[in-house]
Parts: sequence; C-alpha cells; structure tokens
Amino acid sequence: MSKNIKPRLYKGTRDFLPEQMIKRNYVIDIIKNIFKKFGFDPLETPAMELWETLSGKYGEEGDRLTYRFIDRGKREVGLRYDLTVPLSRVIALYPEISKPFKRYQIQPVWRADKPQKGRFREFYQCDIDIIGSSSMLADAEIIAALYHVLIALKFKRFSIRINSRKILSGITEISGATLEKEADVARSIDKFDKIGLNGVREELISRGIKSGGADKILQVLGIEGSNKVRLSKLTDLLKNNKAGMAGIKEMEDLLSYLKMLEVPEKQILFDLYLARGLDYYTGPIYETVVDEPRIGSITGGGRYDNLIGLFSGQNQPATGSSIGLERIITVMDELKMFPEDLKTSVEVLITVFDSTCLPYSIKIVNLLRRENINCDLYSGDSKLRGQFGLANDRNIPIAVVAGPDEIKINTVNIKNMRTGQQVNVPLENMVNEIRQQLRIK
Amino acid sequence: MSKNIKPRLYKGTRDFLPEQMIKRNYVIDIIKNIFKKFGFDPLETPAMELWETLSGKYGEEGDRLTYRFIDRGKREVGLRYDLTVPLSRVIALYPEISKPFKRYQIQPVWRADKPQKGRFREFYQCDIDIIGSSSMLADAEIIAALYHVLIALKFKRFSIRINSRKILSGITEISGATLEKEADVARSIDKFDKIGLNGVREELISRGIKSGGADKILQVLGIEGSNKVRLSKLTDLLKNNKAGMAGIKEMEDLLSYLKMLEVPEKQILFDLYLARGLDYYTGPIYETVVDEPRIGSITGGGRYDNLIGLFSGQNQPATGSSIGLERIITVMDELKMFPEDLKTSVEVLITVFDSTCLPYSIKIVNLLRRENINCDLYSGDSKLRGQFGLANDRNIPIAVVAGPDEIKINTVNIKNMRTGQQVNVPLENMVNEIRQQLRIK
Repeated sequence: MSKNIKPRLYKGTRDFLPEQMIKRNYVIDIIKNIFKKFGFDPLETPAMELWETLSGKYGEEGDRLTYRFIDRGKREVGLRYDLTVPLSRVIALYPEISKPFKRYQIQPVWRADKPQKGRFREFYQCDIDIIGSSSMLADAEIIAALYHVLIALKFKRFSIRINSRKILSGITEISGATLEKEADVARSIDKFDKIGLNGVREELISRGIKSGGADKILQVLGIEGSNKVRLSKLTDLLKNNKAGMAGIKEMEDLLSYLKMLEVPEKQILFDLYLARGLDYYTGPIYETVVDEPRIGSITGGGRYDNLIGLFSGQNQPATGSSIGLERIITVMDELKMFPEDLKTSVEVLITVFDSTCLPYSIKIVNLLRRENINCDLYSGDSKLRGQFGLANDRNIPIAVVAGPDEIKINTVNIKNMRTGQQVNVPLENMVNEIRQQLRIK
Repeated sequence: MSKNIKPRLYKGTRDFLPEQMIKRNYVIDIIKNIFKKFGFDPLETPAMELWETLSGKYGEEGDRLTYRFIDRGKREVGLRYDLTVPLSRVIALYPEISKPFKRYQIQPVWRADKPQKGRFREFYQCDIDIIGSSSMLADAEIIAALYHVLIALKFKRFSIRINSRKILSGITEISGATLEKEADVARSIDKFDKIGLNGVREELISRGIKSGGADKILQVLGIEGSNKVRLSKLTDLLKNNKAGMAGIKEMEDLLSYLKMLEVPEKQILFDLYLARGLDYYTGPIYETVVDEPRIGSITGGGRYDNLIGLFSGQNQPATGSSIGLERIITVMDELKMFPEDLKTSVEVLITVFDSTCLPYSIKIVNLLRRENINCDLYSGDSKLRGQFGLANDRNIPIAVVAGPDEIKINTVNIKNMRTGQQVNVPLENMVNEIRQQLRIK
C-alpha cells in the first residue's frame, strides 16, 4: 500500500460529522414530509450525465462551471450541475410517465467554482417540479409547498417574491427594444439592490436601450401599491403588449390560486425587480428571501416550458423550484432554530464495568434493543470514567452501569447524563425507567 | 440554448423513478433504523477526494477503476470508490472525534468499470464501522447489526461466513512459504468454489507454493465439524504458529460474543475458504451470502487496523462492513419480499370536475393536508376519466370527486381505486372516511 499522506479534503467540499448530519437529516426529513403531503414522489438521477445532456443548458458560465472529463471509453461526461436538466432528460427518456408528474429530488450537485465562504463545490439541492401542467395551479402548488416547508421549519419572517418572464418580455418590448434584449433588461433590473434606480437606468442604456426606453422601464418599475394594485397599474402600461398581458393574466391566476391554497397574502410579493439568471424560464419565476440574516434567496424556481423539448423535440409545460438546503441550515444555525440536543440518535450507552461484567452488559443491550431503544455498547478499553466521558462527548442522555454489586442482586444503575443523577433499579424495571427519563429529557 | 439532442443515460448509470425510489427508501429506512438501534450515528463525505487520498488503497485494479480527472486548478481528483477510505481519512483529519467512534454512511460510489448485467458504474453502499476498538466485541457488534438488518428485511435463509486474515497468515507460514505469499494463498483458496480442492492445489503450486506445503494447506482446509470443533482441530495444526494462534483466539472471542449478542449459531459459518480481496484487512473478515438466488455476497467487511495509519501516521484499530444495497434489492425483488402497493406515498388524488368546481377541490385539499394526509391536487387538463387513469397509473389508493351536485349539498364522493367502490359523504366526515379506507387497504 502507499506511504503516509496528510489527510486533506478537496477544497470546497465538506465532511458532515454526526452532529452536522443529524441537523441536515432533521431539515431534510421535514422537507420530504411536506413534499409528500403535497403529492410529490421521489426521483434520483445519476451523478454523471453525458456532456451533451448538460452542455448549453445553463448559459456560458454554467458550461464553464460544470465538472467535465473524458472517461476510459473516451466518452465526455459531466457531473450533475442541478436537478432540473436531469429531470428534463428523464421526462424525455420515459414518455410513458403519467402526467402531470410531480417529483421531489434531494441530491448533491457540483460546481467547478472558486470556493469561498458559503460557496461550495459540492452542495445539496432539494427540488420539486410538476411536469405536464400549464395551469398556474401547478405553480401555486409549488409555491404553497415551499411556504409550508418554511413554516414547518419554523421560519417566521420571509417573503416569496414572484414575477413573470412574460411581463419582463412586455417591459422590454414597450421600451422599444427587441425581445433579444430581454436578458439585458432582466440583468439590469436584477442589479437594483446594488446600484439603485439611477444605476439601473445607466446599466440599461449601456446595454443598448435608448434613453426614452429606459425611462419607460423605470416608469413601470416605479409603480406602487399592493400586489393587486400594482398588477392593475401594470395593465394600463402594458395593455397593448401581448406577452405582457399574458404575463399579467398568469400573475392574477397565480395569486388567486395561492389565496385559495391559503398561503397568506402578506408572504407573497409580486416583485418586478425579480429577474433570476437562468436562461430557461418562460413564465412565472419565484424565490424566497428571509428578512434576516441577509443571505440571498433560500428558494428559487419558475416555469420552464421549453427545456424538455430540447431533449424530446416536443415541449412539455413544467414548473418547479429548488430549496437551498445549505443556506437554510446556515440561517437556522444563526437564528438558533434547531431543537436542542440534536447531536446523536443514540439514547443509551451501556458501559462495561470490567471484562467479568461484560456478559451482563450484553444482556442489558439485548433487552434494550429488543425494545427499540437505540443503544451503544462500549467496546473500548477505558475505565468507567472514560466511558462517561464518551457519553458526554456524544451527548448520549443516559448511561447504564452494572458492576459486581448490581449483578449480584440483578439490578442496574441508570445515570442521567444531563442531571448527573443516578438511580438503581431492578433489571425488569430498567426499560420503563429509561423510557420515562427519555420522555422528560 | 443548444439544439435538440437525444435523451440518453451515461452507460452503467440508472435513473430511479418513483416506484424504484420508494422500494429503495423502504430498504434504506430499515437499514438506518437498525444501524441507529446499534448505536451508530450518520456521516457523509464528499464525492470528490484528492487523488492522493484514494490512490494505492484498493490495489492495482482499484486504482484503475477509480474515476479520476484534473480540475481547472490542476488538482488531481477522484470520485469516491468506497466508504472505508474516506472514513479513514476523516478519522485521521479530526483526531478530536471521541472513540470508539461508530458511524453509518449511506452514499453512492463510482467505478470506472465495464457495465454488465448487475454491475454498475454508480451504486450505493451502506456501511457501518467502529473505530478505536481492538476488541472482538466491536466485530461482533458489526456482525450482529448486519444480522438484524437482514432479519428486519425478512431474509430467511442466509449465512454469515467469517474467517481471519491472521489464520490465513498462519496457514501460509505452516506451508513453508513466507508471509509475502499470503495474498497468493488467499487468492488460490478463494477460487475453491470454481475449481475445487484439486484446482486449489494446482493454483497454489503454480503460485510458487511447494507441493508439500500445498498438501499442508489442503489438510487444514479439509478439517470438518462444527465451528467449535474445527477451531479446536485448527489449534492442533497451528499450535506452533503465532499469527495463526492469535487468529484462533480472535475467532473464539468473536464467536462467544456473537452468542452473547444472541446471533443464532446456525447463521454463523467459520469458513476457511473465505478470503476477501481487499489488501487492507488485518483480522476477522466476514461476508453474508443468501442460499437463493446465487448472487454472491450481500454484505462484506472485516477488520483493518492499519489503514488509518496511512493518513495519520498512527494506527487506529477499526472494523466494519458494507451492505450491498443493489444486490439486496435484486434478491428482494426476485423473492417478492417487498410489501405490495409500495409505489407511491400519495394517499389521495383530489380530482377537478371542471374549472367552476376547482375552488371546492382546493378546499378539500386544504382540509386533507391539514390532517397530514398526503394528497395530490389534479392540475392537468384531462376529464375525470383521465384523472382516474392517473390515480390508477400512480397506484394512488383513493380519489375524491366533487361536481356541482356534491358541492350544492356540501358532500364529496370518495372512490376507492382498488375496489372501484364509491361512497358519498358529507364534507365533515371526509377525513374520517378516508382514514378508515387507508387503514384497511
């Protein structure tokens, strides 16, 4: 075998030790349960896709940031960059799948990016999508599911921003520019947070929008009032534009379905400044931001009616969103939203007094496991004190001890590691006593 | 965006559609619960490791079968080949982890192999390991956990084969060969199933064992009797060999701990023909085979006391096993061991009679989801008949229908998709009626 080498991680990747894993699983389990409640079934796709499947779907930057290599059979292969393109490939590959198809998918993706604080080369995405429905009801179901995920995770102050690519097309057209400029208009508007309204105007002009056109766009962006009021004002401004009016109708339908699905209106912000980068969106786009801490969006998605057609030659209406697991965990950590004591699933450590007492300790383990209590049997060579130390380090709530005195009278000592209290009980009462201590922990 | 391309998978990889995913999750959930019950906590490591971490750990073939590439920063990177080497890297990287450390890890691994029936380039491994204990109690805990996983999955006829690398060393030495020949001896013995005892003899001689030595080895392999009897006969044959006697002592301890842990003796086969390929094993080795179908081992592992030292410079005793998820699923499929109706987690499809009835359907969905019933709201544009077709295709047990007549009197029709029976109930009785039908499904 090889010589000693220093243990190192590949930059931008992480190990998840038990304590972090248990937090991650806590979040993922909640997400999965809401997804299921909303009628989504699971799907997984392979880490490696043929390069032809991935290339050209994410724009130039996406191509550059996709891990790609040639395999031993000279095939060009890339690592999964997101979960939407693989889903689209799946839909095209298996036309027999009944529609509308609702799937959730929770898997890591990879980006050949420069690692920075909070930006990783491997991270998880949690996606839900509905394929085969062009109704805004599908978009509303996605957004309602996102809302309920955040509520279930106990997020309190967040907004779901929604906008429409069709409205962005309308805005582009009434500025006098052709639709080819839509991406430029979107990118300029997207910078509002950083450069303000005047900055957006300059950006628009620098990207080739005439100054009169830029002013028209600013006029649209400047409308005020509730979601409903702004949609009605927008109708006045876009009334002669076909794409724009189609977008407004979609927004109205979407807002009305969200209301029926009991997503509180105050959480929904129809937001003309929302653009979202990806090329493939065609209708509503949506993302979630938390008021605090400022960390960018924690969910992002939209409708992409033309992506699947790239694979099958036949378009399929599709809409969906990704939940940013890593950012959600960061926020929950910062706001202390995780339940306490989420460090191990082990409930009891069975200590071993000495080798002569080991058979009795094993008997205890057998009894507890038969009752579905998660327990670890100490297999190291420390004395009792070191064994209690292990229980403390791992945050195991209870330790069971039985030395010669206890064995003689068929009892055990149950030590509550939080309070430090220890009780001696007959072996036949052990399960009940432990159950009770676990309940009141 | 790019032009149409035919949707294709990279060879040797698979999509898992909902029905397959739900089966996989059924198995994984059972495995996880047993792992937890035995005191293991979760760990995950990144898909990409530095090449220096992976290289030279799996032997020449392993090096060749590891996916490797150069990233944009000119770093040489490989994809995870198994879960044992990443674990060893983790242990060396975080010396602060309390020991014994018990972790489970369930993640895909990749092999740059020629795809064949049942052999994939991406597949899941489910591993448990105990680090920091040199006691055979740790090996016994691993084997007991494997036993309970198989029982929980309802496997009936299987054997856990165990052997010892130390005994193999002893056998090599009493044949008159040096320890360098141990791998050759192991590989020869390993072929017994295919080439028989005479074949093993020829193989040994062709690998440089003298014919007298080969006969000695055959004498050892030929001993008969129960596990205990064979160990005692082996003691006679190896009594002057240090490694061999240490191996026998370990086997005796292991068998005695397995008995205390109530793993039935009939499931355990002390088997001198078991060799296992990997270079890094140092003590007991173990694998599980099912009597039927003949598919090779479904678990495999052993003790590897020197692997972690390659990273930290300091050895750590370690033992553990992998569960072959893919083979287990193949066997369970063939033996029809999966519960029926394991096709979707959706319990109810809420149909939409027409657009005027949609608000009432949404009201129904809200009611059911509030009661934590998994339900899908139809968002496509088929008539009722097509909607029932979707419920059938997805194997959703119940469909709810409400047209103008039902809405007028505030009722719903509940259609049991299995029996075809339909009942009309007041809206306020809907949840109870559905609960009852789901219970008796």
